[in-house]
Amino acid sequence: MGTIVALGGQVGGAKLADGLYRLRKRKLTVIVNTGDDFEHVGLAFSPDLDTMLYMLAGLENPNAAWEPRGETHRLLEMLRMVGGPDRIRLGDQSLAMPILRSEGLAAERTLSEITRGFCRHLGIKANVVPMSDDRVRTQLLTHEGAVSFQDYFLQLACEPVVTGFQYANAAEATIPDAIVDALRAPDLEAVVICPCNPYHVVRPILEIGGMRELLRKQGAPVIAVSPIVGGGALQGSAAKMMLELGREPQARSVAMEFYKLIDGFIIDQVDADQAEGLRASGIEVLVAPTVMRTPNDRIDLAVQVIKFARQIAEIKAEA
Amino acid sequence: MGTIVALGGQVGGAKLADGLYRLRKRKLTVIVNTGDDFEHVGLAFSPDLDTMLYMLAGLENPNAAWEPRGETHRLLEMLRMVGGPDRIRLGDQSLAMPILRSEGLAAERTLSEITRGFCRHLGIKANVVPMSDDRVRTQLLTHEGAVSFQDYFLQLACEPVVTGFQYANAAEATIPDAIVDALRAPDLEAVVICPCNPYHVVRPILEIGGMRELLRKQGAPVIAVSPIVGGGALQGSAAKMMLELGREPQARSVAMEFYKLIDGFIIDQVDADQAEGLRASGIEVLVAPTVMRTPNDRIDLAVQVIKFARQIAEIKAEA
Repeated sequence: MGTIVALGGQVGGAKLADGLYRLRKRKLTVIVNTGDDFEHVGLAFSPDLDTMLYMLAGLENPNAAWEPRGETHRLLEMLRMVGGPDRIRLGDQSLAMPILRSEGLAAERTLSEITRGFCRHLGIKANVVPMSDDRVRTQLLTHEGAVSFQDYFLQLACEPVVTGFQYANAAEATIPDAIVDALRAPDLEAVVICPCNPYHVVRPILEIGGMRELLRKQGAPVIAVSPIVGGGALQGSAAKMMLELGREPQARSVAMEFYKLIDGFIIDQVDADQAEGLRASGIEVLVAPTVMRTPNDRIDLAVQVIKFARQIAEIKAEA
Repeated sequence: MGTIVALGGQVGGAKLADGLYRLRKRKLTVIVNTGDDFEHVGLAFSPDLDTMLYMLAGLENPNAAWEPRGETHRLLEMLRMVGGPDRIRLGDQSLAMPILRSEGLAAERTLSEITRGFCRHLGIKANVVPMSDDRVRTQLLTHEGAVSFQDYFLQLACEPVVTGFQYANAAEATIPDAIVDALRAPDLEAVVICPCNPYHVVRPILEIGGMRELLRKQGAPVIAVSPIVGGGALQGSAAKMMLELGREPQARSVAMEFYKLIDGFIIDQVDADQAEGLRASGIEVLVAPTVMRTPNDRIDLAVQVIKFARQIAEIKAEA
């Protein structure tokens, strides 16, 4: 049984990572987007990292998987009373990691180190690693100017037309050692791009200097799972962004975003009619149920991903 | 109706300040001890300031008046889970002000300014002002070395023998303008030393460079209320410290701590037998019920304090 590297963020990314984790435990490394990290009330928020940790620790709220179960908002109520900002709905439990992260960063510990500490205490055996310990910030270019995803999502309610993206400092940022080691492991079996927004979750990871080359370095199959099912995003604003960027909001368009990088692409059964066209473009395609409603769905999809990777490895070996 | 300046901290100080506040509203300035401020999980805690604000805003927990009513500890539970410290029992609501305070201080706002903002939002009309915007830290000298009050109280359970106190940086610290203005006001009617620990709550305030002179500048009566009733502290470790410092743990010993500063001293009815001796030392004494169990008790004591100050002012005028 080889090792696997998954990459992504958001709820969809965390769900597939969780499925892979149930199968591979410490043989899984997850590279998490930090391009949407932000500062608020003086604290360092890493929403994709935190979502990933709650999910892998089994703490996620089934109805709002970006936060822990049974979240309360007592601190936020007091924050409002004393004149603090309430545009971000801070949860009580959800503030623990940002507080310790801020303290750690101020003491010059790296984000990787801090994240490793959280994993150890939460009993997470997988290696969860931020895409870089350097600060990278994704900006959505819109008709109303450049904005962070947080502001686009919360302040602007995803309304402005998105015309492009900027990944400030991505090219200069360095890849943490734990990622380099995982991607150079001789037993690397697959690299999995999880189903999440291709523009502000996957792309920032790919834009880190040297990341694309490193992902293909061992020759392990690179597989992506479509975040677009039936012409829409399961969660979030990916489909809207695709339309505004002049792309058809379909699974096949996502495959084209990763064209040079991936060996295989997994689309949902409802999009089965797109398989042939993709294959004609030279991409291996698997049609499978990709919507992860239950924890078991996550494992089922992970099994499919690994099987598919093995098939591709065999095809590659024969070629 | 003149203005009043009260000084102190802790629950006893906040209770009498609240009584005075009900009577004088914006004509009250409260100078609050910040010598016991501390940093924890990267945040700036000002326990005496926060206790004062909860009390004046009417938010205090009647059974634990240093925290707001209905406090919960969800953040602390998660903090523990991810490996954070739990030696301080952080409350969810109680973290709001430290978070905003830390953010404000990092943005180079002064503690006075930040506190004024909290008061405005909480609808507190009195001027609540930290004793200094500079960092002053009280150290308890003990047989086990110099420690902060937090560590003495929480880590060491008040066990080490206290041999003295240090008020680091107090002499060099400057007095905020709002305090200077309040103490120079021509209509200043009284300066009230609230019932709280004389060594690590009142003394740090008095040790700020120029504070003692300023407190007496307008010639308004300076009145102290004994925190020791019937040979014990109502709350906290004052009596224990007095014993260890070689003082008799009695109200009259507290009066001696402030001998050169005060015109009048208020002792509880149970200590009525100490009045004569104190008067013989040249201090005006009022015997009154000083134990504040209910919000009305706070007002009753405040009424007594103000009456007593008027009597002393008349005596001074006649002399």
